[in-house]
Amino acid sequence: MIVKLNDHASPAAKSAILETLARQDYSTRRVSLPFGDFIVGLGDGAGDTTALAALEGVAWARRGAERAVLAGIDASTSRTEVPLGRTSIGGAALAVIAGPCSVEDRDQISTCARFVAAYGATALRGGAFKPRSSPYAFQGLGHEALEMLAEAGKNTGLPVVTEVMEPGEVEPMAPLVDCFQIGARSMQNFPLLREVGRAGKPVLLKRGPSSTMKEFLLSAEYVLLEGNPHVILCERGIKTFETATRNTLDLNAVPVLKAQTHLPVVVDPSHGTGRRDAVIPMARAAVAAGADGLIVEVHPDPARALSDGDQSLTLAQFRTLVEEIRPVAEAVGRRVEATPVPNFGEPRSSGRRRGTGWGAGD
Amino acid sequence: MIVKLNDHASPAAKSAILETLARQDYSTRRVSLPFGDFIVGLGDGAGDTTALAALEGVAWARRGAERAVLAGIDASTSRTEVPLGRTSIGGAALAVIAGPCSVEDRDQISTCARFVAAYGATALRGGAFKPRSSPYAFQGLGHEALEMLAEAGKNTGLPVVTEVMEPGEVEPMAPLVDCFQIGARSMQNFPLLREVGRAGKPVLLKRGPSSTMKEFLLSAEYVLLEGNPHVILCERGIKTFETATRNTLDLNAVPVLKAQTHLPVVVDPSHGTGRRDAVIPMARAAVAAGADGLIVEVHPDPARALSDGDQSLTLAQFRTLVEEIRPVAEAVGRRVEATPVPNFGEPRSSGRRRGTGWGAGD
Amino acid sequence: MIVKLNDHASPAAKSAILETLARQDYSTRRVSLPFGDFIVGLGDGAGDTTALAALEGVAWARRGAERAVLAGIDASTSRTEVPLGRTSIGGAALAVIAGPCSVEDRDQISTCARFVAAYGATALRGGAFKPRSSPYAFQGLGHEALEMLAEAGKNTGLPVVTEVMEPGEVEPMAPLVDCFQIGARSMQNFPLLREVGRAGKPVLLKRGPSSTMKEFLLSAEYVLLEGNPHVILCERGIKTFETATRNTLDLNAVPVLKAQTHLPVVVDPSHGTGRRDAVIPMARAAVAAGADGLIVEVHPDPARALSDGDQSLTLAQFRTLVEEIRPVAEAVGRRVEATPVPNFGEPRSSGRRRGTGWGAGD
Amino acid sequence: MIVKLNDHASPAAKSAILETLARQDYSTRRVSLPFGDFIVGLGDGAGDTTALAALEGVAWARRGAERAVLAGIDASTSRTEVPLGRTSIGGAALAVIAGPCSVEDRDQISTCARFVAAYGATALRGGAFKPRSSPYAFQGLGHEALEMLAEAGKNTGLPVVTEVMEPGEVEPMAPLVDCFQIGARSMQNFPLLREVGRAGKPVLLKRGPSSTMKEFLLSAEYVLLEGNPHVILCERGIKTFETATRNTLDLNAVPVLKAQTHLPVVVDPSHGTGRRDAVIPMARAAVAAGADGLIVEVHPDPARALSDGDQSLTLAQFRTLVEEIRPVAEAVGRRVEATPVPNFGEPRSSGRRRGTGWGAGD
Repeated sequence: MIVKLNDHASPAAKSAILETLARQDYSTRRVSLPFGDFIVGLGDGAGDTTALAALEGVAWARRGAERAVLAGIDASTSRTEVPLGRTSIGGAALAVIAGPCSVEDRDQISTCARFVAAYGATALRGGAFKPRSSPYAFQGLGHEALEMLAEAGKNTGLPVVTEVMEPGEVEPMAPLVDCFQIGARSMQNFPLLREVGRAGKPVLLKRGPSSTMKEFLLSAEYVLLEGNPHVILCERGIKTFETATRNTLDLNAVPVLKAQTHLPVVVDPSHGTGRRDAVIPMARAAVAAGADGLIVEVHPDPARALSDGDQSLTLAQFRTLVEEIRPVAEAVGRRVEATPVPNFGEPRSSGRRRGTGWGAGD
Repeated sequence: MIVKLNDHASPAAKSAILETLARQDYSTRRVSLPFGDFIVGLGDGAGDTTALAALEGVAWARRGAERAVLAGIDASTSRTEVPLGRTSIGGAALAVIAGPCSVEDRDQISTCARFVAAYGATALRGGAFKPRSSPYAFQGLGHEALEMLAEAGKNTGLPVVTEVMEPGEVEPMAPLVDCFQIGARSMQNFPLLREVGRAGKPVLLKRGPSSTMKEFLLSAEYVLLEGNPHVILCERGIKTFETATRNTLDLNAVPVLKAQTHLPVVVDPSHGTGRRDAVIPMARAAVAAGADGLIVEVHPDPARALSDGDQSLTLAQFRTLVEEIRPVAEAVGRRVEATPVPNFGEPRSSGRRRGTGWGAGD
Repeated sequence: MIVKLNDHASPAAKSAILETLARQDYSTRRVSLPFGDFIVGLGDGAGDTTALAALEGVAWARRGAERAVLAGIDASTSRTEVPLGRTSIGGAALAVIAGPCSVEDRDQISTCARFVAAYGATALRGGAFKPRSSPYAFQGLGHEALEMLAEAGKNTGLPVVTEVMEPGEVEPMAPLVDCFQIGARSMQNFPLLREVGRAGKPVLLKRGPSSTMKEFLLSAEYVLLEGNPHVILCERGIKTFETATRNTLDLNAVPVLKAQTHLPVVVDPSHGTGRRDAVIPMARAAVAAGADGLIVEVHPDPARALSDGDQSLTLAQFRTLVEEIRPVAEAVGRRVEATPVPNFGEPRSSGRRRGTGWGAGD
Repeated sequence: MIVKLNDHASPAAKSAILETLARQDYSTRRVSLPFGDFIVGLGDGAGDTTALAALEGVAWARRGAERAVLAGIDASTSRTEVPLGRTSIGGAALAVIAGPCSVEDRDQISTCARFVAAYGATALRGGAFKPRSSPYAFQGLGHEALEMLAEAGKNTGLPVVTEVMEPGEVEPMAPLVDCFQIGARSMQNFPLLREVGRAGKPVLLKRGPSSTMKEFLLSAEYVLLEGNPHVILCERGIKTFETATRNTLDLNAVPVLKAQTHLPVVVDPSHGTGRRDAVIPMARAAVAAGADGLIVEVHPDPARALSDGDQSLTLAQFRTLVEEIRPVAEAVGRRVEATPVPNFGEPRSSGRRRGTGWGAGD
């Protein structure tokens, strides 16, 4: 049960609401968000909205078991913009979050960061803790990678986005992270959602591969319930029978979610296709569908990548991506902020040595 | 087994190829297409491509059981453009095929035709024979509808696209139809594919709701094997677990198919979403992804439609769609041909009477 | 709209019903089935069941657009048993329909028929017209195969089940066929469903790979509407993301369908798994779930089969299947009729020659 | 990389193996399991099995990134039996794990425990920490519930199975838990898998709703890699387009997994169907398919259940389930151990008061 308070609800009114919720068998919590103050009832209470709506200080009361109310389009009178670095996600400027699947070494991430910063990225992604289906596969370099990523972010002025996999890691990671990514496999890791909610930093929440949009929004609701409104929803493909692509990128989710929530929606065409040759067309499509941004995998030398090489763009391809989404963004009334650096130099494949990447002097 | 002939293969060379295929246990057929002459072997033959490739007059020989060879990107040196009315599908100009799900009466289809023609459609769609899950649902007006559709097409100069459901109907329908639609449920109706192949008219082939892209191309191959190269592939959504939309529009299919076939690919955002509010964004996305055109349902009064009302655009929304795809098309190097008629008048909801539609005098 | 008539509805009462339906904008049809006489209204009528239920001679009136009413559990007071050969499907005795995917030659089908007859089959399956994703794949031997199949059936006393792919083939095939199979790809081939409905012979209707149970029953309804009650529903696996099996056999469909329809439900563990090693366990599971029978692919020499070899049982494995389902059938109150012939001889692999199969003298 | 050691591999041989793995860029770990001693290489190493296989003391060396090797059928010469309470899972006796979705109060769980113990359960299930799609839904009573569950288990002699949702809870929960359940949403929660691996207790691992069987086995591999062989795989339904059931129970997984792993496989027909009326038929089917056991939801008063009421059996239905699976188990060479207590009394619906359940005096 979610009760929205009027702007000037008195302490007495709040007490009456809390008592009524308790009498209806709810445990209660106050939630303060930029778009309103709420008192929520958790658990299987009586669900009597009429009694609540009649109380002083109540703007409205809604049941929440079946839908995300705080994340719902009606909860806020304006769309939520999530501040990230010098820009925000959800406004007229498109977010372009780019970087390697995994941070592999200092050279790779700094090369990648400098390049994507120069050509239009608004944030840097890079995995330090990698969830992998096989325990034998490369699982990320951990805290060491986190420091490399933070350094690369600092040097380029880009905020960093990286995945957190367990509640106990949220606090230790927080000083080095600008935005926590919740991976697709963790979309319904509820203890983790609560913990990143409490941390207060922006959360990039990826849709689970078999999660409906409704479940997706309910997972966002877990974060909002902790008083953290800064959730970026990320469509990254769902699991279907099709095998020509790694996942089926469900761009329907862009207009449908935008109609249901005030939160920004970004798209990951890298995981959503799993094929380098489809990433740029689908990035254009995502922007045209109304997405608030993109998150793409870029690697100085995809053939040598320790993970997701097949779907990573080269540095040159990333530049092409930005060039190609700019006119599409304009066609739909958005803009790509970045001014590409014209003589930044050509990216080059790194040759045989793994992870060396595109050299600074080139 | 598919054998491509050299340009000047001699009769003797052709005989030798036919004999070799027969010796390999194939039944044979000659197929002449704009992009080459072929001799194909059908059935479970020996599959010895080396022996065939060594023959005089052979450009190449490939096995076909696992992939569509005639529809394959390598079979033709240029992309196939399918002529339809005054334009063609697959060139720089986007196809915009629009019209009601079903032809309901003369007024409805003529209203719709005039409007979509005025605002940018390049072809008129309308169902006369409707496959419906329930035998009790409206199944289309049949031949009567076909005549109304043809008349509306003639009056507006738009070629007409309509679904054919059974082999025996192809011949009787042909004089009134410019392009046969094979519906999603019929994608693997092989006798029907052969029959429309033989008819020689353009074929708009919809992807089956649980068909992989590979199966989709193999169905197109059935049509090409009859010597008919004019197949337009149509992505219209696949069946997934998601229930917020009627289908999951798989726009990944656009770049992936374009990489695998020379045939044009159009997108149906109406069936692909099932929600009127998602049709325009997904139409923009389809164009941005590289689609060669769109097929959309438009109805003068969707609330009164006898089928698919929830996903049909109003006439005014169709105009908005064309306005919104134009800059996106330009952003990706394509164009929307139509010059909207500025003072064509405003569409109006028809009020209560079913099928009256938007009045002629408006 | 479906109106069930009382047992002694007078001609005047029937006329009044027909008139009322016509006034509600339905086209009408009388349907006579073993479990009742019905007058149905087709198309998008007014849907006023109250007016109809009040008429003389009316047992009840129901809307049908959303659900299968004639196939529905409430339409009949008893479960439908479909007569086939000496037995029927839907009673205490389990149907065991066995045979090769395709009829490949006289030897293969007669070998197979004799063996499966001896070890417990109640009907013989075998494809003459094969729908194949690729036009280059073996498509069946056609009418020739049909004659071989009919002959093998006659020689063994087994009724024959074979697929029909197009409406125009129903009549020519009828004299040689005891039960028409509608393949999974044709489940929503509505002209074909109507045609086999009219033919009056039993119909084995396979569930489409992406069809819900509701759509499945609505397809059966098409057949019943033609006055043909003899529909056998066949669960054969649905298309999912899993790749370890060809399809995902949805045995949930057995209890769920049995709760919703009076028609018998059989299971095809061959297509439902695509793996020979899973066929017998899933056949046992199907029987335990309450299926009325099985349809399984059996081949004298699966390694040489022209189609579906990977999922075909050997003759010896078929014997094992029957041995293993017998106690399971008894555990759920059913029985396997067949008395295996103890000294029928061992099946033998045929060696290299394709299609020769297990020799007659063995 | 997984290296199986010979029985009497010398310390020198082991050192050489460790060095070779390190030279191939692996980090190494020794894993001791009942079926062998292993040295594994983690990460993206060179993958040179030939060099490893040639070393002294090596039985075999296999790459693991693509498949579960320790959980693989070839890793052990016998099937793994997981000890649980007085019995084990994976032997001739079927496991029957029963109990409510959530522990709701002392009365409910003790009633349920006594009843299911009397009628044939071999373990007691009950949720204390409940993952729920909505944050507003009942999330379990937590540690309090755990104590009630442990007490009910102790009083009836049944081992208890309960879900753990986060790594930090494994240690505190361990003293009260006999078997940790990893829920479907957590199947790829790798930190949690590692933690329950280290805890050493049996782990009931549920298949994720969109996980392939291969991914399922790789998740089990995470647990085995910690030296814990006691993993019970649980098929509980996958997410498909079908809406008549909550999930599609994929019984194909039973024979296919049994062919690929030595671990036991149990089935959850409650979540696998979501419909009370389908639970018993699908329980029979699971047993017939070769499952090593069942896990079913049972509630004294499903209509009053705080979660999953629609799919919970009543106490009387649980008794029926055990009665019905017994003959099926025997038909496939298994047995149901329990001797139902004949005069244990009839379960009764509890009437209106929530959670009171079936009274002690009955």
